[in-house]
Amino acid sequence: MATTEFPKKIAYGPEVNLQNCPDVFAPQTVPEFTPPPTGIDNLGITSTDTFSVPGLGEATVEFQGWVRVARSKPTAESWDRAEVYTNLIEMYMRGESEAFGPIIVTLQPDILSTGMIRNPRATEGHDTAAKACRMAVAAQFELPKLGLQLFNREPIELTIDNVKSIPPAGSPGKGQIYFVLPLFSRADPDGKPAAYLTSLKFRMGGYLTPAQMQSADTQALLH
Amino acid sequence: MATTEFPKKIAYGPEVNLQNCPDVFAPQTVPEFTPPPTGIDNLGITSTDTFSVPGLGEATVEFQGWVRVARSKPTAESWDRAEVYTNLIEMYMRGESEAFGPIIVTLQPDILSTGMIRNPRATEGHDTAAKACRMAVAAQFELPKLGLQLFNREPIELTIDNVKSIPPAGSPGKGQIYFVLPLFSRADPDGKPAAYLTSLKFRMGGYLTPAQMQSADTQALLH
Repeated sequence: MATTEFPKKIAYGPEVNLQNCPDVFAPQTVPEFTPPPTGIDNLGITSTDTFSVPGLGEATVEFQGWVRVARSKPTAESWDRAEVYTNLIEMYMRGESEAFGPIIVTLQPDILSTGMIRNPRATEGHDTAAKACRMAVAAQFELPKLGLQLFNREPIELTIDNVKSIPPAGSPGKGQIYFVLPLFSRADPDGKPAAYLTSLKFRMGGYLTPAQMQSADTQALLH
Repeated sequence: MATTEFPKKIAYGPEVNLQNCPDVFAPQTVPEFTPPPTGIDNLGITSTDTFSVPGLGEATVEFQGWVRVARSKPTAESWDRAEVYTNLIEMYMRGESEAFGPIIVTLQPDILSTGMIRNPRATEGHDTAAKACRMAVAAQFELPKLGLQLFNREPIELTIDNVKSIPPAGSPGKGQIYFVLPLFSRADPDGKPAAYLTSLKFRMGGYLTPAQMQSADTQALLH
C-alpha cells in the first residue's frame, strides 16, 4: 500500500485527524442509524466508468478494488444530528477495456479528497432518517497500453443517497457529472483535455481483511 | 478593479494566455454559431443564491454585478468543432439579505476558476448545434454584518445549457449542487462548514462599458 503523503497542495474539505484513528477491517457488523467511532474503513468498491478519448472513441470499463476512508468523530451522538467528515486517503481500482487496455485508478498525491455524510437538507428542523454522502475525488488513471496517465482537475463528485449506516457498505452511488468531466494528461498537464469521463456508477463493498487488501496490491504488481 | 494574482496554487482546468487577449466592452454584436477571436469579456451577471447558516437559518439573496471572462482562441474555425477554454479572472457581485446583511462575492485569489464551452457529448459524430458551458468557480463571500468571510473548497460548478453564441449573454444557468455545497469560514478554514449554499440560479448579462464596471466598483467602495 502506498503511504499517504502530506502536506497536500489543497484539500476539498476538512482534514480528518489520523492520530487515534484505527484501521477497521473485516469482519464487522454495521448497525443502522448509529454514528460510529472514528476509524479508517477498508472497503471493497466496484465502479462502471465510461471514458471518451478523442480520436480513439469511447469505452465502458468495469473496475474492482478497494478504498481506505478516514472518518471523523461524529459531531453528535444522535444519528439525526450527527455529521461525519471523511477523507479518501487511498484508493486502488483496476479495470480493463479492449480498446484502452488495463486502467488502474489511484488518488492524486498532492490533493486531499474529502467528503461528508450529513442530512441532505441544510435547514434545521428538516432532519431525515437517511443521510447523503458526498466525496470530492482527485483521481489519476494509468493506461499503460496507451502510455497515458490521466487526472481530473475539477473534482469527481461521488455521491450516495439514502445513507442509513456509516459506512454505507453495499450502497450504490454515482458521479455527478455535467455531461463530461475533462481529464488531463500528465504528459501535457496544462494542455487541453486528453479524455473525458462521461458516466460513473459505483457500489461500495463491505469491509475487507488485510489479506484481501494485500491480494489486490499483489494483482497491481502483476499487471 | 483588483489585479489578478498569479501564480495560483491550483487551477481547475487550462489557463488562458492573457497575452494578446484584448478586453471586450459594450457595445458588441455577438453573432450566433460563430467562434469569436480570443478576448476578455466584461459582462453583467445576476444570480439568485440560497444560503443556509447553521443557527441563523436560510436566506435567498438576489445578486447583481459583473464578471471578466478570458476566452482562449477557439480550437477550430467551424462552430461544430470549436472548443473554447475560459478563465473567470474577476468577479464582483453584491446582494443584500435582511437576516445576513450585505453579501459581496468575489474570487478566491489563490485558485484559478476555469471552464470550457464545447459540445455537450464527448463522442465524435454527435455534434450538436448548441454547446454546453461549464465553469468551476472558487468564490468568497463577504458578510460584514455577521463578520463572516466564507469560501467554497469544492468548486461551484456553474453551467449553461443550449449555448448558441459565445459569450452566452442573456442565457440562464445554474449551479450544479448535490443537496448542499459546504462553505467554510476564513476565521476557521480547516474547521467544519460554517454555511451551505443550497441553490444557485444565474443569468449572464450583456457586455458592459468600462464606466459601468467602474460604477459597480464605486458601489463596492461605498458599502
